[in-house]
Amino acid sequence: MKLIRFGDLNREKPGVELEDGKRLNVSSFTIDYNEDFFAEDGIQKLKEWLSSNHNSCSEIPSDIRLGSPLKRPSKLICIGLNYAKHAEESGMKPPQEPVLFFKATSAIVGPNDDLIIPKNSKKTDWEVELAVVIGKKTSYCSESEAMDAVAGYVLHNDYSEREFQLEREGQWVKGKSCDTFAPLGPYLVTKDEIKDPNNLNLWLKLNGKTMQDSNTSDFVFNIAEVVSYISQFMTLLPGDVISTGTPFGVGMGLKPQRYLRSGDVVELGIDGLGSSRQHVKAYEE
Amino acid sequence: MKLIRFGDLNREKPGVELEDGKRLNVSSFTIDYNEDFFAEDGIQKLKEWLSSNHNSCSEIPSDIRLGSPLKRPSKLICIGLNYAKHAEESGMKPPQEPVLFFKATSAIVGPNDDLIIPKNSKKTDWEVELAVVIGKKTSYCSESEAMDAVAGYVLHNDYSEREFQLEREGQWVKGKSCDTFAPLGPYLVTKDEIKDPNNLNLWLKLNGKTMQDSNTSDFVFNIAEVVSYISQFMTLLPGDVISTGTPFGVGMGLKPQRYLRSGDVVELGIDGLGSSRQHVKAYEE
Repeated sequence: MKLIRFGDLNREKPGVELEDGKRLNVSSFTIDYNEDFFAEDGIQKLKEWLSSNHNSCSEIPSDIRLGSPLKRPSKLICIGLNYAKHAEESGMKPPQEPVLFFKATSAIVGPNDDLIIPKNSKKTDWEVELAVVIGKKTSYCSESEAMDAVAGYVLHNDYSEREFQLEREGQWVKGKSCDTFAPLGPYLVTKDEIKDPNNLNLWLKLNGKTMQDSNTSDFVFNIAEVVSYISQFMTLLPGDVISTGTPFGVGMGLKPQRYLRSGDVVELGIDGLGSSRQHVKAYEE
Repeated sequence: MKLIRFGDLNREKPGVELEDGKRLNVSSFTIDYNEDFFAEDGIQKLKEWLSSNHNSCSEIPSDIRLGSPLKRPSKLICIGLNYAKHAEESGMKPPQEPVLFFKATSAIVGPNDDLIIPKNSKKTDWEVELAVVIGKKTSYCSESEAMDAVAGYVLHNDYSEREFQLEREGQWVKGKSCDTFAPLGPYLVTKDEIKDPNNLNLWLKLNGKTMQDSNTSDFVFNIAEVVSYISQFMTLLPGDVISTGTPFGVGMGLKPQRYLRSGDVVELGIDGLGSSRQHVKAYEE
């Protein structure tokens, strides 16, 4: 099943996208895809409800804005340097254990919303990533239990301001949390539809030219390892999002480096998770 | 005004503590102290409502559990090394600009809840801190505008696992986000009651012995500077919490180092913001 949210920013309603591309409004079943929805086995219940109620759901106009396919989570956790070749281009060694950082959840937007270059930014960069959505409260889970905690997957562009991240004292969060820096979607694909999340092609194009082109089989730490690992340090809540790192090919790694400018168009996608597109704009007062 | 929340974890109701120590249930005025409450000028409206309705509010029994005095915020942002002497004991230089990191909001508990030492922890440490609660959506604010964005203040113990934070690859978030690592309260004190937040004594005792004893006048960056600074990198939302760093006297800085053990009792307080007490317990399966 493919979950979507549609409508104006912060007023999105829940929907589904069917195999034939038709989109249905399911707001008569649930208010939103939020923590309670995932905690209360909402995906399974929605599936059952849809099988007998899809004819009564109104169709969503194809030109309506898509939002993030899930409501603001309690956490947006990211894994750093989780593809060996990207660690190398960043001038760092592949880590011995996963590197974790957080993005502010206020950075989350819809898949095709504009990317706004922050004020005073010179080094805004792209990062295509596979993100995992947690389905139930999870603490200290083993690797063999970890996949039970996963509800599904979503495409994420982990936009990063490299000067804010690396040259402004301390922790990476500064360069990861600007508004519009976390487009999620187009849809949340439920776990049953993705046969092997550790073997998916992912790609990113800048103005039509391929910049990132890799496969999640190159993960340093696979999804079960990452989920289990994080759960040793904090409790994962239903709806939490874990973004699993980006492969080789970011702007920082190019010679010369290439950062985003107003007018650029970024497109990205992952096998089975669809694609998204962001138009790059400068911040305006 | 002093806002409190009372009742079982994750089912707290809103209340106020009056000058004479009496506590009133105000859940007939608002569902909770959440993002909407702060965004919709809830503090001012509650004050006005109370002036004519306090007699109809039921009194809260004195033995009831206090929760965090505000509902789970979108962000719990912390400032690192914001007292020069603490930077020194951590073996680091005072920063040229504020160091930011996030704690998971799933770490938030009530002021007198137990501190649970995480599994495999050897270095759980304390940090008394003044935390600021944001009252309105704020982006790119100047230092002169920053105090307008503040709703009030709350006592915070920024518990930290030093091995997870500093010796386990990368970013600090790993050692800051364990469950129970962010006791907030006893109450949220509204801004009007604190004359100068940049001149408050704060202290922490371990088993009755004073370990931290300082004043927020020793801040490297004061509250207006910190709020303005963060707002250059991300949008602050109503109810967001900013913890302003800890002074000299943490366990990591002692010779020999002293970390928390089951049976320890930690007490802390800040002028005007009350005090809290956590009993330290080992994690149990």
